[in-house]
Amino acid sequence: MKLDKRLEDDCHLLGHTEVGLLLLHRNASLPWFILVPDTAETCLYRLGDSERLAAQAVWNRLAQWVHARFDSERVNMAAIGNVVAQLHLHAIGRRQDDPLWPSVAWGQLLPDATWHQDELERLRSELVGASLLVQSAPL
Amino acid sequence: MKLDKRLEDDCHLLGHTEVGLLLLHRNASLPWFILVPDTAETCLYRLGDSERLAAQAVWNRLAQWVHARFDSERVNMAAIGNVVAQLHLHAIGRRQDDPLWPSVAWGQLLPDATWHQDELERLRSELVGASLLVQSAPL
Repeated sequence: MKLDKRLEDDCHLLGHTEVGLLLLHRNASLPWFILVPDTAETCLYRLGDSERLAAQAVWNRLAQWVHARFDSERVNMAAIGNVVAQLHLHAIGRRQDDPLWPSVAWGQLLPDATWHQDELERLRSELVGASLLVQSAPL
Repeated sequence: MKLDKRLEDDCHLLGHTEVGLLLLHRNASLPWFILVPDTAETCLYRLGDSERLAAQAVWNRLAQWVHARFDSERVNMAAIGNVVAQLHLHAIGRRQDDPLWPSVAWGQLLPDATWHQDELERLRSELVGASLLVQSAPL
């Protein structure tokens, strides 16, 4: 599947889920995951039922995993698409001690922070272990 | 069910859906609908499967309806809850000519605009017709 240039620039590719690609925002200030279902449809609510339910099931398991993995107080889940049309589903772990709380993350300036290569590898490995990734991105 | 004070203050009550209350943000700059499932759980991804699927089905039909009714280009769907803990699901119709495009609506200042009583009544009636409301709020 073809990934939107903006998503490709802004995110690390973690690998393939059952329904499409899993990305991680390059800014490590927040655990900001983005699921990109493999579809040409741009609106979640216009997917056919089986495609939508499959995407929501993975999105939901992703949010549960983010909550536990990052000791999040909330996971913000959203399908927005005002800037990037390609369908993509956010799952962003939030805590009261994060740099943006309680603001939403979209459109805000985040403090500089990067994921280290070993952190990315550990996340990929854990996501495979949690059956969220069916195929990890190449090293 | 008991509605959070902040939601009650910020929104008109439109009525009851199959899964909980349907609200409309008092600011009429955007068609900003909020579905409040009848549950004590605060995170969408922690609902039991049947409750979650039922809530997502109504949310999805709501987004389809908003898209068609307001000739929206996108409907922004989100479960955030950083400010109001009670589970609530946004469905916000967005257009390139709306006052906030392409910014997200949360945390932004909206231009003053109010829904008139007759518009609220028409929306309630249409939502009943679309089987989204099972019971309209009292006049």
